[in-house]
This record gives sequence, structure tokens and C-alpha cells, in this order.
Amino acid sequence: MAVRAAVAGASGYAGGELLRLLLAHPGVEIGALTGHSNAGQHLGSLQPHLLPLAGRVLEPTTAEVLAGHDVVFLALPHGQSAAVAEQLGDEVLVIDMGADFRLQNAADWDQFYGSPHAGTWPYGLPELPGARAALEGSKRVAVPGCYPTAVSLALFPAYAAQLAEPDAVIVAATGTSGAGKALKPHLLGSEVMGSMSPYGVGGGHRHTPEMIQNLSAAAGERVTVSFTPTLAPMSRGILATCSAKAKPGVTASGVRDAYEKAYADEPFVHLLPEGQWPATASVYGSNAVQIQVAYDEAAGRVIAISVIDNLTKGTAGGAVQSMNIALGLPEDTGLSTTGVAP
Amino acid sequence: MAVRAAVAGASGYAGGELLRLLLAHPGVEIGALTGHSNAGQHLGSLQPHLLPLAGRVLEPTTAEVLAGHDVVFLALPHGQSAAVAEQLGDEVLVIDMGADFRLQNAADWDQFYGSPHAGTWPYGLPELPGARAALEGSKRVAVPGCYPTAVSLALFPAYAAQLAEPDAVIVAATGTSGAGKALKPHLLGSEVMGSMSPYGVGGGHRHTPEMIQNLSAAAGERVTVSFTPTLAPMSRGILATCSAKAKPGVTASGVRDAYEKAYADEPFVHLLPEGQWPATASVYGSNAVQIQVAYDEAAGRVIAISVIDNLTKGTAGGAVQSMNIALGLPEDTGLSTTGVAP
Amino acid sequence: MAVRAAVAGASGYAGGELLRLLLAHPGVEIGALTGHSNAGQHLGSLQPHLLPLAGRVLEPTTAEVLAGHDVVFLALPHGQSAAVAEQLGDEVLVIDMGADFRLQNAADWDQFYGSPHAGTWPYGLPELPGARAALEGSKRVAVPGCYPTAVSLALFPAYAAQLAEPDAVIVAATGTSGAGKALKPHLLGSEVMGSMSPYGVGGGHRHTPEMIQNLSAAAGERVTVSFTPTLAPMSRGILATCSAKAKPGVTASGVRDAYEKAYADEPFVHLLPEGQWPATASVYGSNAVQIQVAYDEAAGRVIAISVIDNLTKGTAGGAVQSMNIALGLPEDTGLSTTGVAP
Amino acid sequence: MAVRAAVAGASGYAGGELLRLLLAHPGVEIGALTGHSNAGQHLGSLQPHLLPLAGRVLEPTTAEVLAGHDVVFLALPHGQSAAVAEQLGDEVLVIDMGADFRLQNAADWDQFYGSPHAGTWPYGLPELPGARAALEGSKRVAVPGCYPTAVSLALFPAYAAQLAEPDAVIVAATGTSGAGKALKPHLLGSEVMGSMSPYGVGGGHRHTPEMIQNLSAAAGERVTVSFTPTLAPMSRGILATCSAKAKPGVTASGVRDAYEKAYADEPFVHLLPEGQWPATASVYGSNAVQIQVAYDEAAGRVIAISVIDNLTKGTAGGAVQSMNIALGLPEDTGLSTTGVAP
Repeated sequence: MAVRAAVAGASGYAGGELLRLLLAHPGVEIGALTGHSNAGQHLGSLQPHLLPLAGRVLEPTTAEVLAGHDVVFLALPHGQSAAVAEQLGDEVLVIDMGADFRLQNAADWDQFYGSPHAGTWPYGLPELPGARAALEGSKRVAVPGCYPTAVSLALFPAYAAQLAEPDAVIVAATGTSGAGKALKPHLLGSEVMGSMSPYGVGGGHRHTPEMIQNLSAAAGERVTVSFTPTLAPMSRGILATCSAKAKPGVTASGVRDAYEKAYADEPFVHLLPEGQWPATASVYGSNAVQIQVAYDEAAGRVIAISVIDNLTKGTAGGAVQSMNIALGLPEDTGLSTTGVAP
Repeated sequence: MAVRAAVAGASGYAGGELLRLLLAHPGVEIGALTGHSNAGQHLGSLQPHLLPLAGRVLEPTTAEVLAGHDVVFLALPHGQSAAVAEQLGDEVLVIDMGADFRLQNAADWDQFYGSPHAGTWPYGLPELPGARAALEGSKRVAVPGCYPTAVSLALFPAYAAQLAEPDAVIVAATGTSGAGKALKPHLLGSEVMGSMSPYGVGGGHRHTPEMIQNLSAAAGERVTVSFTPTLAPMSRGILATCSAKAKPGVTASGVRDAYEKAYADEPFVHLLPEGQWPATASVYGSNAVQIQVAYDEAAGRVIAISVIDNLTKGTAGGAVQSMNIALGLPEDTGLSTTGVAP
Repeated sequence: MAVRAAVAGASGYAGGELLRLLLAHPGVEIGALTGHSNAGQHLGSLQPHLLPLAGRVLEPTTAEVLAGHDVVFLALPHGQSAAVAEQLGDEVLVIDMGADFRLQNAADWDQFYGSPHAGTWPYGLPELPGARAALEGSKRVAVPGCYPTAVSLALFPAYAAQLAEPDAVIVAATGTSGAGKALKPHLLGSEVMGSMSPYGVGGGHRHTPEMIQNLSAAAGERVTVSFTPTLAPMSRGILATCSAKAKPGVTASGVRDAYEKAYADEPFVHLLPEGQWPATASVYGSNAVQIQVAYDEAAGRVIAISVIDNLTKGTAGGAVQSMNIALGLPEDTGLSTTGVAP
Repeated sequence: MAVRAAVAGASGYAGGELLRLLLAHPGVEIGALTGHSNAGQHLGSLQPHLLPLAGRVLEPTTAEVLAGHDVVFLALPHGQSAAVAEQLGDEVLVIDMGADFRLQNAADWDQFYGSPHAGTWPYGLPELPGARAALEGSKRVAVPGCYPTAVSLALFPAYAAQLAEPDAVIVAATGTSGAGKALKPHLLGSEVMGSMSPYGVGGGHRHTPEMIQNLSAAAGERVTVSFTPTLAPMSRGILATCSAKAKPGVTASGVRDAYEKAYADEPFVHLLPEGQWPATASVYGSNAVQIQVAYDEAAGRVIAISVIDNLTKGTAGGAVQSMNIALGLPEDTGLSTTGVAP
């Protein structure tokens, strides 16, 4: 018996990727699709790659339209999810793909978003300690940000095993779909092709407190994070290069052991064989995470590198994975670890 | 009961894409994987996107290794398939993804390949008149070339409906994976990024006689083809811009009608609504074909434009679709019309 | 003694490329730079690649600001150039990089632009028969469109030598800068990377009548043009694949001879050695045109392929070349035939 | 009176870029061009963007061919420059674009290259303290590596001003031309487009000791470097994200002051206005370096980001700049700070 799912914000990149995954999910029937300025338009003109849904018409994002579904996915601008969720009631599984319910600390929210904190929901990164249990049977899920997904999975085993000093340095490259469909000059194809550029340098990116929250929880102490995001000339993918000073006594084999143990039973996280480094193309369109880790003895640092597809594991795939857990379905239902390459 | 499939030539782009599709096919169990110079290596180092098969080791391409399967896919350099197929016997379904058995005319083969003609097998483009029936129950399939797939589907309805003069002009852009993994200077990333270039101009491309064969069959008369392939800075995708002089009396609505009728019941071919033009990104990684057609009254030409993923519908997806038909499975088993975009 | 040049529309791609070239021009001093919505902003924030002008502030586009220069370049939306030019007076060299003064036939203008025809100025494609003489000493220049530049240079020798039937089929790929800095969804990096798509199919593109005008003049008879532009995943460059039925008696050597003669003395047009085909990367950032031509005997067509940089020879380089001629400077002053590759 | 320059290794990317710059240099006449496996071929087929040299034929790389020039540029595989230089004699200006003479410490050379150390030549990064003086009148120049150029210019002001702890973390993205024209599978366009990947992780990259050498000299103490290079889907450009713990008492304005002073008089290095971050496209094809620096108070780190064109300032432009200094020409002769964008 399929669950019936609605998607609020179906015309954007996150909503489109979610629909791509739900179309392949054997346990889901796709219900209402809503948009804001695009309400009334055919999905075929907005998301021409979603052929099976080409004839669907977007409806406005109202409680009435979203009512009567088992699951409602919210792909809305931040600050809008709380009001919608409240109207849907406690029996509906609400999965927020935005930022509103990710942070535990209201002061962090206030500093980075400048608006009232909506609350905290179970966090949709099941690979983190304790996260999977909190998702089971939950009616609310906060899907992590794309960068925090890549970074937390790259570094938490080092922190959980007390291998790294609480002072992480992260430089990540993202495909342009991470910035959404916003019509901004620096996102034009002419600007991004053949070019790399940083943004939000110096601690300003809104995903920073989320990384600090996850890594500090793993370490059992406050971890500082220097995070520099960069925009790469590709549509999808995140490559996160993460490092921290090694704690005294760390060895290369100790580092490798910690990562092997952390991910031995994880269906979506794959630690590569020693000497092989990941490429974002390998996880294109898949829910897989590929990770490699090294100990640079000369520099005294643990270096962990992860790749994800920002739209899949980083957003919509993480949402489906969390939905599966919340509903008691096998966690990998409808999700693949096979990338589309080359 | 799953059929057991072997793939000869599993380290190339065609073989890799086939494995990606077979991994998602509910009726197939993946058996032996073979390579030539890569025999003995792990697939994980050669095709890191195929995570579920990362531990598989490539075997040499011999009759012994390929024996004992229900289906054998051949992704071999041209000229090698006949000998392998003969050794496999008549009870095994052999699907040749190379060129050896596509052409009906031995003289065409000789002119473009300069070697003995191996023969002609049922042609794996089910959308062409009569092709589906020939594939049903067949033990041999010749998968079409990627360009002929895109071009034949774009133009055959016009020829079948006697709308176009037998003199087609085709300019197509392909992603670089169409050239395979060959280590040639002009295929280096530094050369192809930011650049477009033609090749095989003036009738020299080996896919030309295959297009002539298909379009002539549809038209009932000999069709000449001027074909210019171009290399585009993208990994996947073919955009085929095809046109021909309109026959006397042709109208825009007559053209549209012919295409609507031709593709009304086809699961993988989608005629776009009037005014919407296709983009290769919309079919990325999918088996879909998106087509639009127009009648340019001032120039007196019918213009049909199709997009496919050269590795999916253009190669491995077409192979799986043909396998499904040959085995009596639903034609779309394991195949999707949803592209991976953006 | 340097001429003093003003640029109206300095914040766009055409204006930016023009400034790049003028910075390297030994006979030009850069005067006023104007913008519309960007007036008041530093050029450094709008065109960060133009370092020597980073401190310049854009002024509004008024006759007062543009007065007092020897040359005024107009990079304005179509329909705005006539009024500005009139205010500047007859002694100032006005070079219009827009469409307003390209077409000779008012009915063509009306059909494609739907507004009153402003007139016709000497046409800035010196390589066409008679064009260079008309530019010498002129105070007005209409710079050709980017596509007509590539297409006219590819085909006019065939028409001038009576080698081709008056029925041309053209498919051209352009980099995204050809569409300007307009904030449109289909121009976002996420949409264009990894994708090719056609637009303006079926005769609708505004550059079509300009091509017809040029080719008909060369042929001495009315030439029809079927023109399909496509958008390629690159910032710059046009690859124009142009063909027409060969007239009776045409031979491969006859075709080659005609092109060799046409371009023997042209400083910017280079006919490649037989067998070598052009790539857009080879002319990146340069004013060069690289051309190859072939006679496809089986299809009976002459096929000519040209590459240009749409912003350089296709717009700003063509403007500077025409300025040089109009001012009596050596035609190649400040212009290069060396591309930036790889 | 032009100096006569020979280029050994004219068929590669470094040699091609050098020729592009020399063609625009008013004081240089291009003499012999040599190649190894390509000797005897026309440059037009190997470097089709260098139109003015298309008819030149590559000669073998011998002392006889290279004799009789005022300047000889060596773009050879490492280990080959010493023997050639010795044969050319002390009166010829020899500029080595390879690695052979960059390192001062023979043990470093041995560790990273495993061959005898050839020696140390004046270092062609004039912006470093003391470097310009050492180049004046010199007959030998070692052109820096591309990464060390970007990284040293990003960080040396912080070290020279004692603002940063001697423990730098660097993550850099490079265009694929940095890897040269080598025919390796991971450099194929199909592999690099749409993908980012790291390599040489954990201290193994040969440019690491060169960075340590430069930064340690600036700091007056041994600086450790954690360096992670990544391959980006673009042909050219390096984006270097560099950071280090701030020393006690550091302030944002103190950091800014140090960089303003360091680069106030440098013709090629541009510190961007506060709040503006660099993009590699802005320096495409130019000899400019664009830099921004920030102090991340929460993480306690100084973050400096630089962009260069790896082939221009990172290789051939740096070589020409050094040549100008060595010959007593104005330092910016034939070099531009204007990028080719978009």
C-alpha cells in the first residue's frame, strides 16, 4: 500500500530532484505538487526532465492543497515551514528540506538568519550517532544542509574517535544547483563556466553553525570550523576537503581503522580503498557518499575528503532516506548508490 | 526468475552504462564481466560510480567465461563480435552494441569499415516500422549507433508520411563519451571544454550509411544524407538537428499530425508540446527521446530536432529495451524516462 | 595622437569585450563609459576582469556624457541607437553594435523587430565584396550580428563563385555570452552546463534576414536560409555548419579554389589546410575566423564551417576593425589572430 | 632592437602559452621552436590557435638548433634542463619553466623527484622579497610552479608581517591544463567535465616543498604546509584558498593593512576592495593576480584567496615577466592585466 506524498515547492531544483526520486520509489504515490509564482503552470514546461509528470499542473502552496497526504515534503524558502507544518497536524509526516528546524541553538539561528527560531526536529542524517533512532517513527524531519552532510560525514569519525583537535578547516566546492534557480548575475552560465570563485568567506555561510553542531556532538567538545565554500563550473556535486590537526599519538592505521568501523554497516557511505580518491562524478544522481581519509605526517593533519551529489544525498535523497526510516521501510528503498557517469 | 547476463567489454563507457542499467533491472542477475587490457583489475578502480560492483574483478573475454549465461552483451571493438557470437551458440541471446551487424548492405560495410561483412541481425530500434516484431523472441540483436538512433527517430515519421524530399541535412552535437575512453589528444578535457568542433565532415562518418538505410526504408525511396557530427563540451547527450525540403502541399499541421501519430503509443519517445524545444539535459541518464518538429514555410523545410542520451537510449538503454522485447518482458522494465537534471 | 572613444553600454558583455580590446589598442584613449541601471557603480564590481579600469564609474547614457569624443560605440538594446546618434552629430564616428542599422529592407526590419526602421549604415563586415570601401572614412558603422558574421564568411565565397544553389541550411552553436547578461532561467549555469538546446527554430531568429541579405548580395539572386541556432555549454564561440546543394559541375578542387582566392589577402580569415577542421577554442578571444570547406559528393552539397569568437570578431572585434578602417588606421591595429587556448 | 627567443618544448600547453605571449611582445622576435616526438610537424596542426605561427615547423631539441638566440625558454620534462643549459653557455639568458632549479634544498629535491639535484637559479617570482633584485641582469631564471605562485602570493604578506602561525592549510583548484597534454584517462573530457576530484593528497604533491621554501623565507621560521590540490572542470585557472591560525593580537584591519602595503606598487597583483572575492575567470589569459584576505574571528584564522591563470602568471607570463626584468625591459612589456571574460 503506497504512501501518498505531496511536494511543496515542486518547481525548484530540490523539489525536482525529490520528484525524480519519488518516481522511482516503489512505495510512494505522488500527490499534490505546489508552487508559488509558478502555480497554474504545467510541470512539463518547468521540469522537462520529469516526463512522467509533464502533464501535472502546479497548485498554490496552501494547507488545503497539502491536506490528505501521508507525507508532505517542504522545499520552501527559510522561515515558511513552521506555519505550514502546524496546519498539517501531528499525524502527517512532514519533511522539511529547508533550514528552519536544523539548529538546536536559537542564538545560532538568530545570528545567521535574523528571525525567530522555529524549533528543532529530528535530524535527517542517519549516519550520525543516535540520529537513526530519533528518526524511527518520527512525524517531523529536518533534512540537513548539503554542505553539512558532506562535511559531517567526512569528519565525524575522526572526532568521535578522538583523533582530531577541535579546530577544523574546510574548503568545499559545490555545483551551481546548490544555489538554486535564483536569477542572479553570478549564476549565469557565462559567468560560471570556466571559473571558480569563493563566497561567504570568513565564517559567514549559514551552514557553518550546523557543521559546528554536528562535529561538536561527535567530539564531545566545542569544535571551531573555518569554512570556505567555492562555486565550481558544474551543475551538481560537492567535494569537501576537510582537515584538522591530529591529536598526539595518532597514526595512519588508527585513522583508517576509525573510518572503517564508522562506515562498515552504512548502506550509503563508502570508504574507498587506500590510495583511491573520490570524484564527484562517481556519485552523480545517487545517494552514495564516497570518502577517503589520510594522515599527513609532515603537516600533522588528518585529511578527510568526501563527495556527494548536493541534490541527492545532500537534499532530496537524504529526505527520502529519512522518510524510509520514519515510515519503517527498508532504508534504501528507491535509492541507489550507482552514480551516472561519465 | 532472473536472467543471467554477461557483459563483454565492461570497462568502457558503453559497458559501464549498461551495468548501471542492469543494476536497476529487476529481472537481471549480473554474471561475468570481461575486459581486454583491464582483465584482472577491480571494477571499483575502473568504474568507481558502480559502487555495488566495486569488488568485481574483470575476466578475459573468452567463450569459456561468457558461457552459461542467458544473455551476453558485447561491447567490443568492431570486427570482433561475430567470432564470439558463434562460439556462444544459438540458444543464448547475444546483443551486440557494436557496429558489426547493423548494416544490410555488405558494400556499405566494406566502404566504411574495409573488412568482411559479418551479417545482419534484427535491429534494436523498436520504434521503427516492423522492428519491434523482428526483435520478439530473437536470439540476436544489433543495437543501433547513437547518431542513427537520434536521427532516425527525428526524421522517419516525416519520411513515412511522405512529407519530405529524399535529401536530408543533419547536424548533430554529441557529448564526448560518444568517442569512448580512447586516449586521443583532442578528447582531453583541456581541449574540449569551452570548445565546439566538427569531425568526419563531408560524408565520412561511419554512421551515415546506417541513417540512409533507416530513412530510405521509411521513405520507400533512396534518401541521401548530408551528416555533420560535432563534438560539444559535455560528457553525454546528442542534439540532432535534422531537416529536409518539404514535399509539395505540406502544412504545419500535417507535419505535427504525422509525428503525433507516429509516437502516440511509444513509451520512450515524447513529442513536446508546440513551441517547446528539447534540451539534452532533460534526457540525461534516461532512455527517453524528446522531439520537436516545425515547418519553416519561408525556407520550405521540415525541421525535426531530437535529443537522447547517447549512452542510454543511444547505446545501453536501447540494448536493454531490445533485450526486454526479445525475452518477452515488459518493454520498459528497468528503464526510466526521467532525466537527471539540472 | 590617440582618438578618444566613449562606450555606451559598458556593463554588458559586448561593452566589456570592446573595452578589453580598446585597452590594448595603441591609438585609442578610453573616455566616458555609460550604463543604464548600473550608472554610478564602479566598473571593477561589474567587469572585474578589466583591472586597468576597475576604478572607473559608469555614467548615465546621455548626449552630454557622450559628447566630446572622436568615436562613440553604442552597445544598447535595439531601437535606442538612432536617437543617440542624431544628438552626437555628423562629425563623430558612431559605431552601432546593435541591430538597428544592419538591414537594408525596412519590411524585413518590421517583420522581425516590429518597430520603425531606423535606416541603413555602412556594414562592418569588411571581408564582404564592397564593404571595406564603404567603411573608409565613414562616420557611421553598423556592426554585423555574430551569427551573420560567421555564416556570411563561411558561405559567401561559394555564392560569389556560383557554386551553390540559393537554398542554404545552417545550424550554428553559440556560447551563452551571445545571449548577453539577461537574467533568464534557461541561461543559468545549472541549466546550460552539460546541455545543448536549440532555440528560435523554423526561421524565427532575428539574424536570419541579415544572412539572407548578405548571401543574396553575393549570389546575385535571392537565397533562402534555413537557420537553426543552438545554445552550447561554453561561454564564447560560434561554430557555424553551413551547406547548400552544389550547382551542376562543381568539383572539390573548384570549391577549394574559390575559398583560397576569396581569403588570400584577408588578415583575419584563415582557410585551414585540407583535412583540418576548426574548433572554437582556436579563436577564443581573438579576431580570427577559421574556415574549412568540403564538397560532399554523395550528398551533392558544399559544406562550409566557420568558427569565430562571438564577442570578438562577432561583435567588439568587428567593431574595432571597422573603426580602424573608418579612421584610416591599419586594419589590424590592436587586434590579434592568436586565440587563447587551451 | 628585438631579442631573439627560442622555445624548447613548443608543442605543449606551457610552450603554446609562451608563444601566445611572445607574439604580442614588442621586443621579441620568435626564433627556433623545438619539440620531441612532434619534431617535423607544423605548429598549425599542434597549436591551431597560434595562427601567425601556423606555418612553422618544429625542430628537434638540440644545442645546435637552440644556439644563436638571446633568450632560450625551456619547457621540458623535469631533469632535462641542466644539460641543455650547460651547452648554451653563460651569455644566453636561459629561462627554465620546469622544476629543476626551483628548490634550494637538495634533500627536498631528492625526496620529491628522486634524482640528482641540478642546482638553484634566481627565482622568477619578482613579488617576493628580494626576488626582483636577484633577477636583474641574471642569465638564469627558474620559473616558479603554478601552485606555488598562487599560494606564495596569497600568504607571504601574512607571514612577512608576522600575522600567521607557521602552519598553513591550502586547498587549491586547478584547471586541467595544469596537468599538461598527457594522455591519461582521468584527464579525458568525459571524466573531468561535471566533476571535481582531489589528487596528491596528504603532502605528496611536488609543489609542496616549494611553498614551504617561500613561506618559510617570508616568515623567518619553518612553515609547515598541508596542501590539497583538486582538479576542476575548466581548462585554465587556479583558485587557492589558504589559511593559517592568526597570531595573538591580530585584527582585521591589521591584516588588510599588511596586504595593502605588500602590493601597493606591484603591477600584476591586485588586492580587491573589501567584500569582493576573486574569480578565476577574471584573470583568464592575463598575467594578473587577484587577491582577497579576511580575518575569521570565530575560527581565529587568516584566510587569503588568490586567483591566477595557471598558464599565464603561473607559467608563461611569469617567465616573460622575469625575462623583462633580466633584460632590463619595463617589467610589464607585452603582458596584460586584462582577463578574457566572460
